Amino acid sequence: MNSTEFRKMGKEMVDYIADYLDRIEERPVLPEVEPGYLRPLIPDSAPAKPEKFEDVMEDIERVIMPGVTHWHSPYFFAYFPTGSSYPSFLADMLSSAIGCVGFSWAASPACTELETVMLDWLGNMINLPEDFLAKNGEGGGVIQGSASEATLVALLAARMKTIKRLQSENPELTEASILSKLVAYSSDQAHSSVERAGLIGAVKMKTIPSDNSFSVGGAALKQALEEDKAAGLIPFFFCATLGTTPSCGFDRLLELGPICNEENLWLHIDAAYAGSAFICPEFRHLLNGVEFADSFNFNPHKWLLVVFDCSTMWVKNRADLIGAFKMDPLYLKHDHQESGLITDYRHWQIPLGRRFRSLKMWFVFRMYGVKGLQEHIRKHVRLAHEFEELVRKDEQFEICAEVILGLVCFRLKGSNRLNEALLKNINDARKIHLVPCHLGDKFVLRFAVCSRIVESRHIQDAWAHITKTAVKLLRHEVLQQK
Amino acid sequence: MNSTEFRKMGKEMVDYIADYLDRIEERPVLPEVEPGYLRPLIPDSAPAKPEKFEDVMEDIERVIMPGVTHWHSPYFFAYFPTGSSYPSFLADMLSSAIGCVGFSWAASPACTELETVMLDWLGNMINLPEDFLAKNGEGGGVIQGSASEATLVALLAARMKTIKRLQSENPELTEASILSKLVAYSSDQAHSSVERAGLIGAVKMKTIPSDNSFSVGGAALKQALEEDKAAGLIPFFFCATLGTTPSCGFDRLLELGPICNEENLWLHIDAAYAGSAFICPEFRHLLNGVEFADSFNFNPHKWLLVVFDCSTMWVKNRADLIGAFKMDPLYLKHDHQESGLITDYRHWQIPLGRRFRSLKMWFVFRMYGVKGLQEHIRKHVRLAHEFEELVRKDEQFEICAEVILGLVCFRLKGSNRLNEALLKNINDARKIHLVPCHLGDKFVLRFAVCSRIVESRHIQDAWAHITKTAVKLLRHEVLQQK
Repeated sequence: MNSTEFRKMGKEMVDYIADYLDRIEERPVLPEVEPGYLRPLIPDSAPAKPEKFEDVMEDIERVIMPGVTHWHSPYFFAYFPTGSSYPSFLADMLSSAIGCVGFSWAASPACTELETVMLDWLGNMINLPEDFLAKNGEGGGVIQGSASEATLVALLAARMKTIKRLQSENPELTEASILSKLVAYSSDQAHSSVERAGLIGAVKMKTIPSDNSFSVGGAALKQALEEDKAAGLIPFFFCATLGTTPSCGFDRLLELGPICNEENLWLHIDAAYAGSAFICPEFRHLLNGVEFADSFNFNPHKWLLVVFDCSTMWVKNRADLIGAFKMDPLYLKHDHQESGLITDYRHWQIPLGRRFRSLKMWFVFRMYGVKGLQEHIRKHVRLAHEFEELVRKDEQFEICAEVILGLVCFRLKGSNRLNEALLKNINDARKIHLVPCHLGDKFVLRFAVCSRIVESRHIQDAWAHITKTAVKLLRHEVLQQK
Repeated sequence: MNSTEFRKMGKEMVDYIADYLDRIEERPVLPEVEPGYLRPLIPDSAPAKPEKFEDVMEDIERVIMPGVTHWHSPYFFAYFPTGSSYPSFLADMLSSAIGCVGFSWAASPACTELETVMLDWLGNMINLPEDFLAKNGEGGGVIQGSASEATLVALLAARMKTIKRLQSENPELTEASILSKLVAYSSDQAHSSVERAGLIGAVKMKTIPSDNSFSVGGAALKQALEEDKAAGLIPFFFCATLGTTPSCGFDRLLELGPICNEENLWLHIDAAYAGSAFICPEFRHLLNGVEFADSFNFNPHKWLLVVFDCSTMWVKNRADLIGAFKMDPLYLKHDHQESGLITDYRHWQIPLGRRFRSLKMWFVFRMYGVKGLQEHIRKHVRLAHEFEELVRKDEQFEICAEVILGLVCFRLKGSNRLNEALLKNINDARKIHLVPCHLGDKFVLRFAVCSRIVESRHIQDAWAHITKTAVKLLRHEVLQQK
């Protein structure tokens, strides 16, 4: 394909995308396919000769769309949002075309420098302490692929820092003996990727019990630390969550932070979903205590309209990250690297290669403006409260956790079995999509406001559908009991 | 921005991209900026109100392009190629718009299923043993973000498998005691990401000396194994490289494979660059011995015209990968997951989230056809030999490693200092871009054929420029010696 053909086909693709998103509401949010549906629809092997673009495009509707879960449908209320916006699409097109692999400053200075400055912009937008900004001192930000990677990178940096510290205090200690005693902590509400980070990093990972608002407080952490230290273990890392996946709970940073600082625990904050809300002054208080943290992460690719992937992470001391990873083979060396002025992001992350992802932030920030982004967040929170009100007015249902941002946890009063059946019936109808969680021993339905284009009428529709499904289910139950 | 605006702006971006790539040759391949150049060019913080698209686009040329290293210029001969093609751009646009996060089958069945089938297509294209294909039995393929991640995932799977095996043989062994004795191996020519995988996984990583063709053979591995076993260590993993970064050397799989199998070492093959060449029957012999491997990886985002990121990895036994990572919180569970029919790719990788990357493979394979892709590989190999001939005809220069694919390692006969000066002068002129390597104790220049649009005339130009720079340098040296 030459550039003349690309000019034509690229424009057709732009129209296809606009059409898809303009009419996404008309598609069932969940696909009606069985496992293995796709393989019989396409040939067994790649064609020897080129096929036409028209044939490929026709197959999008024939092969792909029947199997797509439409995450951007206004009837999608599952998981958490994933970012989607036209400015981020435009930026990502440009990123593909430039196609530089920005593992070092020299490999594409613009790629590194725009990232550094965009992380400062975003840090300012959420009023992050200046320690975390590149402009002032020893901190700085980086784009990771996902919050999972950010947690892992923080844990690895903490592991290395702790090993070095203990070995400098006592040179006879072996790395293996320290490693076998290291213990990391998170809330019992933390995301599964935190436990996974411990598994990858070969350290013990313990969960701290959350209280009845699904938050971890200082006393619970303190107790675990005392027990573990008494047993000869070495606590080194705590991952706090702001906006847990099950219920959007918030760990109590103002209690936890001072304990972590006193006890030499690296404090990492995972605010994957909730972090975007901190651009609104009325939600910024939820981040209070970040000043105690060593690293902080959230996902603009979740709630800040940036298309996946773009997970922003800041550290107070960049030397900690770099120290955990730095390798310098000759083929990656360049003139400027010892100048202290530049950043080689390959030392900040698990992969070597990286796309020019900061373009997405730049385009989105500029074409929405901070106010436009705040409106987006506020609309979602408003709609969540609208849904909450509907639930509260219906005495068959109960709200299961405080609604703070865009997530509502609710259930039918009654058994878990009943709620499992309700969820199954809702999803089987394919009109809206929800996923569940456990809160305590309760099976709970999660209603997350997700789509960029969701409006009040979709919330009202969704609630009407949920109640209709519930009534049908309850009637069926009553009949069965007779 | 609404969809009407996107239709207009998206089409302008398509034209900008086509213009950029049509005229990329006219831009200096290396930027002339100093560290810190970008920050003063843009405001200190994000705008409160939306800015116009026109203003953002103008800043591309003003702010970004002056700092871009043009990886797709036909004068870029550094590192290894990174994929770029119009069909992959189109597919990635669609991937952004669909914007599903395919961590499980249910989260978007098409995303998972197309990936599984595309990995089978590509496996067939390189004639991978059927054990590695999803269609037949227990193997299968997955798209990772980078070869670094593939190596790490393989190492972690091997670590877990070995710990489980030893504990089943001797239940009294603790994980910590096993971990402290595990030892992994790679060639001394292996990529820095292999050493890094060992660091992350908290296992010893030793390098095996390569021979004078920069390959590791069976005898060298055997010797290391005997020594380490005698010292009480537990060898568990070998990462073989096909197409090393310094010289495109190939480890001797036919010798190494049987040893790994006998000694219970997980054999992972990193063919990040070279793997794409195996779609050509005349290069497929370089992969002989893959039948001994547990996992195999290469990067279609390097040499197969797929835009970053797309690193394909196959395993013989998918249960080994899944076993190393599997976590199943309720919010990620779905109806089909225990059916045995489906794949939840989140268990195969480090991050949880993932883009719909297989669309890029599907578009590229169909719009180039296998023959089109083979032509692309063959053109690069032909041009590398054309450059090799130019070097060989000039008695001032020497070729430093056998030219097998698209990389030529060469140097001026003489000191390392001379060659360092030559490289610096070449890159300072910004007409072409090369990076160096060490082969033995020699400082060597790497000439990698990279661009999709590179032709014979660019090779001839590059050589003319190199020789002119060398003559100037030699004249200067002679003058200084007087």
